[in-house]
Amino acid sequence: MKVVTFGEVMLRFNPEGYMRILQTNKFEATLAGSEANVSVSLANYGMDTSFVTKLPTHEMGNFVVNEMRRTGVDMSDTVRGGARVGLFFLEKGASQRASKVIYDRAGSAIATASADEFDWEKILKDATWFHFTGITVALSDSMIEACLQACKKAKEKGITVSCDINYRSQLWSREKAGAVMAKLMPYVDLCINADIFGISVEHFKEGNKFNVEGYVSAAKELVHRFGFKKVAVTLRNSITADRNILGGIIYDSASDTFAVSKEYDVHIVDRVGGGDAFSGGLIYALSNGYSDKEAIEFSVAASTLKHSMEHDFNNATVDEVKSLVSGDSTGRIKR
Amino acid sequence: MKVVTFGEVMLRFNPEGYMRILQTNKFEATLAGSEANVSVSLANYGMDTSFVTKLPTHEMGNFVVNEMRRTGVDMSDTVRGGARVGLFFLEKGASQRASKVIYDRAGSAIATASADEFDWEKILKDATWFHFTGITVALSDSMIEACLQACKKAKEKGITVSCDINYRSQLWSREKAGAVMAKLMPYVDLCINADIFGISVEHFKEGNKFNVEGYVSAAKELVHRFGFKKVAVTLRNSITADRNILGGIIYDSASDTFAVSKEYDVHIVDRVGGGDAFSGGLIYALSNGYSDKEAIEFSVAASTLKHSMEHDFNNATVDEVKSLVSGDSTGRIKR
Amino acid sequence: MKVVTFGEVMLRFNPEGYMRILQTNKFEATLAGSEANVSVSLANYGMDTSFVTKLPTHEMGNFVVNEMRRTGVDMSDTVRGGARVGLFFLEKGASQRASKVIYDRAGSAIATASADEFDWEKILKDATWFHFTGITVALSDSMIEACLQACKKAKEKGITVSCDINYRSQLWSREKAGAVMAKLMPYVDLCINADIFGISVEHFKEGNKFNVEGYVSAAKELVHRFGFKKVAVTLRNSITADRNILGGIIYDSASDTFAVSKEYDVHIVDRVGGGDAFSGGLIYALSNGYSDKEAIEFSVAASTLKHSMEHDFNNATVDEVKSLVSGDSTGRIKR
Amino acid sequence: MKVVTFGEVMLRFNPEGYMRILQTNKFEATLAGSEANVSVSLANYGMDTSFVTKLPTHEMGNFVVNEMRRTGVDMSDTVRGGARVGLFFLEKGASQRASKVIYDRAGSAIATASADEFDWEKILKDATWFHFTGITVALSDSMIEACLQACKKAKEKGITVSCDINYRSQLWSREKAGAVMAKLMPYVDLCINADIFGISVEHFKEGNKFNVEGYVSAAKELVHRFGFKKVAVTLRNSITADRNILGGIIYDSASDTFAVSKEYDVHIVDRVGGGDAFSGGLIYALSNGYSDKEAIEFSVAASTLKHSMEHDFNNATVDEVKSLVSGDSTGRIKR
Amino acid sequence: MKVVTFGEVMLRFNPEGYMRILQTNKFEATLAGSEANVSVSLANYGMDTSFVTKLPTHEMGNFVVNEMRRTGVDMSDTVRGGARVGLFFLEKGASQRASKVIYDRAGSAIATASADEFDWEKILKDATWFHFTGITVALSDSMIEACLQACKKAKEKGITVSCDINYRSQLWSREKAGAVMAKLMPYVDLCINADIFGISVEHFKEGNKFNVEGYVSAAKELVHRFGFKKVAVTLRNSITADRNILGGIIYDSASDTFAVSKEYDVHIVDRVGGGDAFSGGLIYALSNGYSDKEAIEFSVAASTLKHSMEHDFNNATVDEVKSLVSGDSTGRIKR
Amino acid sequence: MKVVTFGEVMLRFNPEGYMRILQTNKFEATLAGSEANVSVSLANYGMDTSFVTKLPTHEMGNFVVNEMRRTGVDMSDTVRGGARVGLFFLEKGASQRASKVIYDRAGSAIATASADEFDWEKILKDATWFHFTGITVALSDSMIEACLQACKKAKEKGITVSCDINYRSQLWSREKAGAVMAKLMPYVDLCINADIFGISVEHFKEGNKFNVEGYVSAAKELVHRFGFKKVAVTLRNSITADRNILGGIIYDSASDTFAVSKEYDVHIVDRVGGGDAFSGGLIYALSNGYSDKEAIEFSVAASTLKHSMEHDFNNATVDEVKSLVSGDSTGRIKR
Repeated sequence: MKVVTFGEVMLRFNPEGYMRILQTNKFEATLAGSEANVSVSLANYGMDTSFVTKLPTHEMGNFVVNEMRRTGVDMSDTVRGGARVGLFFLEKGASQRASKVIYDRAGSAIATASADEFDWEKILKDATWFHFTGITVALSDSMIEACLQACKKAKEKGITVSCDINYRSQLWSREKAGAVMAKLMPYVDLCINADIFGISVEHFKEGNKFNVEGYVSAAKELVHRFGFKKVAVTLRNSITADRNILGGIIYDSASDTFAVSKEYDVHIVDRVGGGDAFSGGLIYALSNGYSDKEAIEFSVAASTLKHSMEHDFNNATVDEVKSLVSGDSTGRIKR
Repeated sequence: MKVVTFGEVMLRFNPEGYMRILQTNKFEATLAGSEANVSVSLANYGMDTSFVTKLPTHEMGNFVVNEMRRTGVDMSDTVRGGARVGLFFLEKGASQRASKVIYDRAGSAIATASADEFDWEKILKDATWFHFTGITVALSDSMIEACLQACKKAKEKGITVSCDINYRSQLWSREKAGAVMAKLMPYVDLCINADIFGISVEHFKEGNKFNVEGYVSAAKELVHRFGFKKVAVTLRNSITADRNILGGIIYDSASDTFAVSKEYDVHIVDRVGGGDAFSGGLIYALSNGYSDKEAIEFSVAASTLKHSMEHDFNNATVDEVKSLVSGDSTGRIKR
Repeated sequence: MKVVTFGEVMLRFNPEGYMRILQTNKFEATLAGSEANVSVSLANYGMDTSFVTKLPTHEMGNFVVNEMRRTGVDMSDTVRGGARVGLFFLEKGASQRASKVIYDRAGSAIATASADEFDWEKILKDATWFHFTGITVALSDSMIEACLQACKKAKEKGITVSCDINYRSQLWSREKAGAVMAKLMPYVDLCINADIFGISVEHFKEGNKFNVEGYVSAAKELVHRFGFKKVAVTLRNSITADRNILGGIIYDSASDTFAVSKEYDVHIVDRVGGGDAFSGGLIYALSNGYSDKEAIEFSVAASTLKHSMEHDFNNATVDEVKSLVSGDSTGRIKR
Repeated sequence: MKVVTFGEVMLRFNPEGYMRILQTNKFEATLAGSEANVSVSLANYGMDTSFVTKLPTHEMGNFVVNEMRRTGVDMSDTVRGGARVGLFFLEKGASQRASKVIYDRAGSAIATASADEFDWEKILKDATWFHFTGITVALSDSMIEACLQACKKAKEKGITVSCDINYRSQLWSREKAGAVMAKLMPYVDLCINADIFGISVEHFKEGNKFNVEGYVSAAKELVHRFGFKKVAVTLRNSITADRNILGGIIYDSASDTFAVSKEYDVHIVDRVGGGDAFSGGLIYALSNGYSDKEAIEFSVAASTLKHSMEHDFNNATVDEVKSLVSGDSTGRIKR
Repeated sequence: MKVVTFGEVMLRFNPEGYMRILQTNKFEATLAGSEANVSVSLANYGMDTSFVTKLPTHEMGNFVVNEMRRTGVDMSDTVRGGARVGLFFLEKGASQRASKVIYDRAGSAIATASADEFDWEKILKDATWFHFTGITVALSDSMIEACLQACKKAKEKGITVSCDINYRSQLWSREKAGAVMAKLMPYVDLCINADIFGISVEHFKEGNKFNVEGYVSAAKELVHRFGFKKVAVTLRNSITADRNILGGIIYDSASDTFAVSKEYDVHIVDRVGGGDAFSGGLIYALSNGYSDKEAIEFSVAASTLKHSMEHDFNNATVDEVKSLVSGDSTGRIKR
Repeated sequence: MKVVTFGEVMLRFNPEGYMRILQTNKFEATLAGSEANVSVSLANYGMDTSFVTKLPTHEMGNFVVNEMRRTGVDMSDTVRGGARVGLFFLEKGASQRASKVIYDRAGSAIATASADEFDWEKILKDATWFHFTGITVALSDSMIEACLQACKKAKEKGITVSCDINYRSQLWSREKAGAVMAKLMPYVDLCINADIFGISVEHFKEGNKFNVEGYVSAAKELVHRFGFKKVAVTLRNSITADRNILGGIIYDSASDTFAVSKEYDVHIVDRVGGGDAFSGGLIYALSNGYSDKEAIEFSVAASTLKHSMEHDFNNATVDEVKSLVSGDSTGRIKR
């Protein structure tokens, strides 16, 4: 089994701890980007995974390659060239103060790459799963084309395709996203967080409970429209910037059944990458023959653990996730 | 509109994070002081604001001037000279462990300045608001005199005067504070947290609710005694060192009405400066024609946000405060 | 009064804050070890206390001696020699993610010391209390022998002996621990957390209340079996890695009475050393004539405060602990 | 006297100390940019100085404004808007290992600004000196136009104009630089380091002495060609990345005389900004009526001191520079 | 071409900068070990290189695997298991104060591994070069056997074998080293720094010049005794802890010729790993068809650059080394 | 043997590395003060040493006691009380940029102590040596009296008395220092750096050689005037802020002979405390029966090593100093 992920990996600069950008001269530089985050999750679970992007040949490009490589992700299909690594500045929120993201990603190597720089025949050789996100697609017209070519090649080879819609209002409008992504959806087997196709769902029911029925009904409509095999949704109740309630739902079209996870009341260390840990958990679980119920529990537990870790990457192991799934959420030390 | 603030700005040395003073050799040096904190709040809201104090001509004095100047506060009316910058050591508490403050402010340039070093005619030229606190007054007999001169000149010029009583038991007794401050009160339009004049209020009613009626009744008594136009009070329920419930009340004598803010359940990053953010919020709101209800909501939201920030200064913008007032306390990232 | 404590002091390496071991190159090196932690607690309370161990003569041994010495612990009876300082790597958990300890203590100077390197006649001269733990005993056969000799000498001299069983599954099995420790128990006056002798207690009653009756019943059985004067137990409900509910019980055999402490809902800064702060509190309180009720309140408050401090050592003073016992848990700053 | 400086101010990200980019996740973010550096030098000397550029309205733009403002530079004529702050990554060299700069400045707010965003009539009101560099000009065609407009307006107003050619091979070819800059030179009174106009000078004479005669001869040729009043050159003998010999020459066309400075053997803390400290020193000295000899000594001493400081900015005071000029280079502490 | 390197990789803990061990609680954890250092040099030069050792399966083992993997070294032939990662504490010297190393490497996974855990047939498949050092051999009797097996298999496959004698007095006596290593020497093609076989050389001639003739004469004797194809020696004149003069010699037995490098006067950032950078340079150069003169210049320049970098690893690229070889040692920034 | 030292210990706040005070918010807090530095030197050499001062009872006082105690200095004769710990801000110079000291020591506990708080009968019990400096004397009239009492008691008990004149122009004029110190000199056996008594010496002879004859002649004059047994002088040629040439001279009155040390060319890590390391070396050497030549070599080597260490304290061991005396100044690592 080998998972190929396609998209952008950025440098993320953030002040340490709860310092605001205006308060400090010290920044941490780590990697970030939805698709890279998924690839790293899978590498941590011990899976073969290759991450495909384009990165400059200078030190900042090397910095990114090295940091990816240290997690065990295969970077040999990443194209080298282009002018810059996309980056963003993150200020972590606390209590009632929201986190802030200032993107500085325009003109990055991957955003300015052309579609034909990626040889999908070669890249997808030996792959069993292909993953991309709406962010990859939003980068440029060339990336729309590249994703389309990748999806077609994947289908041709019988490779499972997953897509996390991951809508970003700073990159495109919900309308444009819906129109563009609709062209790619027919190739997708597993669709995650598809909130751009005009199907509106109330997040909560009375008493602040997650509206599971609403999400399932939306999932059925999406399956009807695009033919997805499975549809997954993350549930998140943001109490404050550092406390969220997390859960997830997965719907299976073949059996017309859904599974809902336990809920976790999470003290957040770093929220960014939490959704990608969910996607990574799903891909791992479904690749390894987990039932839908097992898969949604695994991926929500993985996402929960991610929220307790600094920076974008989920570095939980399979054992750590399983331990949480099996009920050990007390944080006791083993010694 | 231009707000002139008068008082002390100190160097605050604190260990990083939750480290205790005895545990570390690394200290952060930032600025602190009730009046400076108010001035910085106003600069962050985009207001013209001048901070008046006295600071030595050596590097430590320059350090303070620079750090003030970076926020946009006008430092050109600050007198230069004197031997030292006042300072204090702060150890941040956590859970049931209280924060600690060790003052080392005796002999500071402002505490040893004479009243005639401040030319209020010049300083208050173009000013629309003058703000000082009980701490300024407590520094020395010269500062009592300086505050009196400033108040008189302000009244003469029709400038609104606000005073945060800000009682500090390490500086003077409640009795002395009450006697001295009583002489200045006739010049004050807006009085904040006047808990030194022998009017006792139970903080909480049954069920740990804030005793709003009690505070309003005290406000009326204060108005009766000193002729304040408005009286404001911060409400604080200290659950632990890192969790407080915050609110506020404002009473208007002309209309004999009061307004109470929403309450916020706050996970504290740094509690110091929280009251000054309240004062800064009030001055901004009342200067800009907010109603009392709008003003108290703005200032309590500002104070709430300050509690989520490291160090004394409130660096929230008007947009950030308004966003919290309008109900967005979920800390969701916009991206 | 002088308390002699015997055991290992290790170097503890941990990443800063919530960083995981795989995420960083920066580690903090502080001291740790159950017996050393107790000794430091007592020094902070102003008691004469001597810590006995063995440490190499090279810089790392000197590092440990210096760090102990700075707290006021007398290190003059510590033997110098051996190859290495035992150490462990700690990764602090958060929310649902558990903390991790990776021991690297095999072959340490104290674990490879022989029993006759410790001259108990000299070491216990002037001592009024001797404390050791099950960890000391688990280090090697020589340490079993050394503890036995120390206990015998202490009894001979009429010195009170306390033992924190402190079971560590990474060092020995519960069965072996039970068998070995049973030989030492007849010399012990105060036994803490004796969960290795096959007496099983349900931790919680319905509604997640601590099962006080169960613990008291077990204490009686222990007294019956080993003749302890007092038995103490820590109560801990681990909600998550950073939130615990803490309490404690002490049972007195002479009066056949027990005392239970208040409970504290704790936001954890660092959990390691929390149990040792409890033991330190007990030894201080019982040495200074506190009643059982006062002693258990003091030691649970001390343990609670420890959870709000970074690293293993409890650096609370008697005043700080008493302030919490007397009800001030609001973390308000005095200024 | 007021000096207006025009150009780009960038964020400079560098690893701490001698760490290479590939070795660390910790970066320092400070300000940099030839023209900003000059402006800050002048503010440190107590001169009125305004820095003109364009900066985004988001936090990263505010970060830059604040950092400039803290030094005392007037930022009120800086235009706000545009997408990004230009930035670069710096790796400090040591011994035989060279420093590295990776620019990421394309698309910055100032590089994409149009010439008509700058109202020179208003900006140059009250100015006595206008300074720009070849880097400003190299940013875009609009900046060529803006510099031209500024120069014309300055001449119109009788303002002295200085230009540091500051050739950057990563921005343009020496040929293009020569052709473009030639159009602006007729407006320039003081020209610094004009090495792009095809006049070649051997840097060293036999025995590694600076070729003063060669530089003077080139200066005469430049004066002949462009009509400069004065021409200044920095002398630098780079022994290694952390040891340089520094000096400088100034040539005056009216008197047809030149002055050469003392030489300094410098242990480099941070080399970047060293040339800008030279320019800043010249502008200060010539604005304040120093003779050419005094001016070149002042500016070379300033540059020397800058090399002993971290980051781009020269924060030496006039007293510090004068002390070095007068011969105190022993670094003795006064206490 | 693929180079296989065999030995130990340790964790190196050092205080930051020039801090002594007794002065700080902050340590940097990086990788170190002669053989690992060589492998990383080669990966930085873009060569295929595999590092073979044994590492525990816990986080500290993973830490090491990740840090190696980030440089591009293939870790797939490293055996996983064993109890601990070897480590050492380093205190960096300055001026007349020497650096200090305190080893804590006994009982490491590789030192306690058995010879048959390494399947040399598989490991050396596709290899063109095998490198080990005297340190690998000194670890245990099993490692003597493992090195012997590796050497035999390498010879069988026609793979070039290099050995850096790298004598460590803390691991074994010079006599024992000489006796043991002598058994392995017949398999070695390139021998580096063979100072354990009783052939004494005066390091310096009159006037502190390196005694090239002496070293060449010793090389001839070594070739005579063991049949080496080439013998290489590093030349080092330690002026102080932070200033050394470096050079190197290579002797070729077939042609009976030698080549001597330029000398470099080096300001040392970190001296550890300097010799390994020399070995790495030689292997790269000789693998890529460099002449002996070119090879010795490349490897001495590589070693020189390493001295300007923090930590053990040489992260110079081929371009950086070549640039220094070709004479650019001025450290000028290209921008 | 036991050495009692009397004076002030201050908190020293300095930015990290070469950062200037205006550039950073991060400060290191360590201990400093001439007399404390001497005491710590002696503790590092394994001598019994007690440091006598007065320190407040709050956390900052405890901080100082702990940091002294960690080095092994006996703090039990230090008086507790007073308002503040004296402190100063240090900015480390580099190359031609001088270091800066900004004192903030007025009103410290020791400066405001009265002479009768020190019970010299008790303090000097068991002492064999008493050391103080001109700085102690300069603090206040009470300290003049306290030093006088201490000297008299020491003479009465046959204790050797040493005094480092340590003239500080920020504390008093050279004239006042000369007049006051003259009263204490008759009690002094060993006088160090007596440059306040109007005996002028040219530091250097032609060719920048130290003027040994001049110093010896001045020593004779001092002996004649005050009856010293020995007179010692440090020799320092300040090339730049980070490079000094160091040496020393000792003159013995009984034998009318002098001894001069080797000279060291030092790359300075931190210059402060270098003179105190010289004094500490002398006291150790002369207490332990070293000859004058051995003593001056030991103390100059100790001072040299101190210059290679961060912060005020000399933490060299006797072995480290002896190793440098015996000629090993190459900084080679032993491994």
